Amino acid sequence: MTAERGGTRVGMVGGGQLARMTAQAAASLGITLTVLDPDPSPPAARAGARVVVGEPDRLDDLVALAEQVDVVTFDHERVPLGHVRALEALGHRVAPGSATAELAFDKAASRRRLREHGFPLPRWTEARTVADVVAFGDAAGWPVVVKAASGGYDGRGVTVVDDVTSADAAVARLGPHLVVEALVPFDAELSVLVARNAVGKVVGYPPVATVQRDAMCAEVLSPAPVPASVRRAASSLAERLACTFDLVGVMAVELFLVGSDLLVNELATRPHNTGHHTIEAAETSQFEQHLRAVLGWPLGSTRSRARAAVTVNVVGRAGDDPRRHLPDALALAGAHVHLYGKEPRPGRKLGHVTALGATAAEARAVAHRAAAALGSPVPAASTGGAA
Amino acid sequence: MTAERGGTRVGMVGGGQLARMTAQAAASLGITLTVLDPDPSPPAARAGARVVVGEPDRLDDLVALAEQVDVVTFDHERVPLGHVRALEALGHRVAPGSATAELAFDKAASRRRLREHGFPLPRWTEARTVADVVAFGDAAGWPVVVKAASGGYDGRGVTVVDDVTSADAAVARLGPHLVVEALVPFDAELSVLVARNAVGKVVGYPPVATVQRDAMCAEVLSPAPVPASVRRAASSLAERLACTFDLVGVMAVELFLVGSDLLVNELATRPHNTGHHTIEAAETSQFEQHLRAVLGWPLGSTRSRARAAVTVNVVGRAGDDPRRHLPDALALAGAHVHLYGKEPRPGRKLGHVTALGATAAEARAVAHRAAAALGSPVPAASTGGAA
Repeated sequence: MTAERGGTRVGMVGGGQLARMTAQAAASLGITLTVLDPDPSPPAARAGARVVVGEPDRLDDLVALAEQVDVVTFDHERVPLGHVRALEALGHRVAPGSATAELAFDKAASRRRLREHGFPLPRWTEARTVADVVAFGDAAGWPVVVKAASGGYDGRGVTVVDDVTSADAAVARLGPHLVVEALVPFDAELSVLVARNAVGKVVGYPPVATVQRDAMCAEVLSPAPVPASVRRAASSLAERLACTFDLVGVMAVELFLVGSDLLVNELATRPHNTGHHTIEAAETSQFEQHLRAVLGWPLGSTRSRARAAVTVNVVGRAGDDPRRHLPDALALAGAHVHLYGKEPRPGRKLGHVTALGATAAEARAVAHRAAAALGSPVPAASTGGAA
Repeated sequence: MTAERGGTRVGMVGGGQLARMTAQAAASLGITLTVLDPDPSPPAARAGARVVVGEPDRLDDLVALAEQVDVVTFDHERVPLGHVRALEALGHRVAPGSATAELAFDKAASRRRLREHGFPLPRWTEARTVADVVAFGDAAGWPVVVKAASGGYDGRGVTVVDDVTSADAAVARLGPHLVVEALVPFDAELSVLVARNAVGKVVGYPPVATVQRDAMCAEVLSPAPVPASVRRAASSLAERLACTFDLVGVMAVELFLVGSDLLVNELATRPHNTGHHTIEAAETSQFEQHLRAVLGWPLGSTRSRARAAVTVNVVGRAGDDPRRHLPDALALAGAHVHLYGKEPRPGRKLGHVTALGATAAEARAVAHRAAAALGSPVPAASTGGAA
C-alpha cells in the first residue's frame, strides 16, 4: 500500500482503535496515517493506515516511523519519555511534545507539575515501598488508590488497597515507581476534551460525565448532567491546563466532582474514549481535531449537533462475538455502531455505540439497547468506586 | 493486510472514491471491503479496502473477487452485464442483481424497461448509425443528446449534437450502440437517493437539486429548492422504481423537472455523487446504507441532521493541488472537506466539500468558499445545459 502521493503524512505510535478512528478521519482529508505497531495488521491498518512494524519502547523503531512522516503523535502512553525527547533532539516534530506528553505518560511527574501550578488534585504522594503506601494510608485514611507511575491503561496499573497485605501485593505488581492517592468519594466523574494547536488556539468540547465499570469507562453522557456552573468550571480548568502546558493536540481531562469542587484525576494527551461521541455529536470529531491540531492547522468547530449524546462501550463476553449481532443493533433507529476489528475476548473493549437524542434519557435508551443487542454487558447506572 | 477475522466481507467492483467512502463506513461496522481494481493502490485501498488487482471486464477477475466475499456490489458501471449474470449463475450473491444493474449499465435496455412500466422519460430512441441520429433530430428537433448505451460516466459517453456533422463525430466516438434523446429544457435537475434491502424495505432521502458544470455534477443542494409537492412526487417515483425493479442497495434516480412534470434522466444503482452530503447531513450515510442494504441488514434512518446541506465538488485545476490549500479550507467553520487521494489533474474530480446550515444560502456560502479555497473552480449558479 503506497502513501497518498503529495499529501500530508502523520505518524502515530500505536495502531489500536484510536488510531483506527484517526485513520478514518485522515482518509477524508487525504492525509496518510502511518502507525508503529508490533502487529503488522492492527485495527488501524484495516482502516487504511500504513504500518511500520515495531515496538513503541524501541527508539530505532520510533525513528523509523518519524522518518516517514511530517509529525509523530500517540495512540497510547506506553512510550518511554526519554525516547520522545530523543526524537525531538533528532529534529523530528512530535505533538504533543515530550513536556506535555509527560502529563499523561508519567503520573508522578504529572502530579508534581499540576501541584506546582496550583491545579486541584486528590491528596497524593509518590511511593516506592510498602512502607510508603502504608504511611500514606495511615495518614490519609484507608483504602487508598495505588497507580503505577507509567504504563497503565483501562484500569491496568491501578488498584485499590485496603491494608498492608494488599499494599504488599500492589507494590509487587505495579512497582517500583508508584503514585498513591486518597480514594475520592466523588459525586460524578467528568471528562473534558480540549484541543490546542501550535499557534495557541484552544477549543473545548462540552464536558461529559463518565460511568466506570470494572475500571473501564462503560458509558459517556454528553453533556454531563451537572449544573451549568460546574460545566463552565470544568471547561475553564481544562482550557487552563491546555495553555499552561503548551498542549498541541487533543487532551482529555478527567475530573472528580466532589460537592462543587473539581479535582484532576487523569490526563490523556490524545484522542480519548470519553470523546467518541464527537464522531456523530460534534461538528468536528476528536480524531479530525487531533489531526488538525498536531499539523498546526485551524481547529474545527466543537459545536454539538444534538441536545444529548450517549456512548456505551461494547465489551466482549465469553463465547460471543458482537459482529454476529450487528443486524440486531442496526435495527435500532439512531444507534451508531463502531466495531474496532479486534478479536473478541471476555472483558475486551471491542467497539462502542453512540446515540443522539433530544434528551439524555432518549439517547441512553437507544445506546443501551444497541450495546445489549451486540452482546455487551449493559452498564450499571453508577459504580460508586474510584477510576 | 489481512481481513477482519470473523467479520462480514463485501466485494466492490472498482476502488475509486465511492469505494473509498464505502471503506470508511465499512471500517466502523467491522466489515472487510475488498475491491477489484487494476490499480493495486486505488483510493479505496488507502481507506482500508483490500484489493484484488484485476479488470472489471474480465470474468476471471470478477470471480476472484466474488470468491473472497459474501456479496459483490459496484462502484461503477463499467462491467459487462453478461459477466454479472455469470457470477449469479455461479452462485455468487450480487447486489444489485443483474436485472437491476441493467438499469444503470445499459441505457438502451433501461429506457425500454422504464417505458414498458410507464415511467416518464424524455423522448428517445435507440440508434446505431448517423442516419438514425439524424432521423431522430429531424423528428424531435435539434439539438439532441447522444449517449453511449454503456460505459459512460461523468459526462464521458454523452454529447450534444446539433447537426449531421456533429452526429457523425458522435457516432464515431460513442458508437455503435447509442441512445438519442431530445434535449430537455428543464427547470431543475433533481436526484433522489433511495435504498431497498432484500426483504423489500424501502427508504428514501430527501430529493436534492443538482447543478451541472462541464457535464459533471458541480453542486448538490439538499433539500431541493422546489415545491414540497414536487419533492413528494420525486420521492414517490424513486420508491416506485426501487420496488418495480427489485433494487437491492442504494440507487440514485436523476430527474428533470419541466414545469411540474418529472422525467427520468439517469439511474445509478450504487452510492452516488448526489448523495455525499448524507455523510454529515443524514443519520445514515449513503455508504453505510448501501452496505446495510446489500447485506440484507436493517436499513438506517434517512432523517436529516440539518435544515439545509450543500455539497460542492472539488475539481482539479492546472498546476494546482487542493491538498496544498487544506488549512485554508479548514479555517472555514462548518466546511467538511473530503479529498479522494487522487493525483491532481485539471478537470478531475478530486474531492468534495459539504456544509450544513439553517438555510441553503448559509450552507452554500460556506461550501463555495471552501471549494474556492481548495483551488476548485467555483460552480456557476446554473448552466442551462443538459446532463
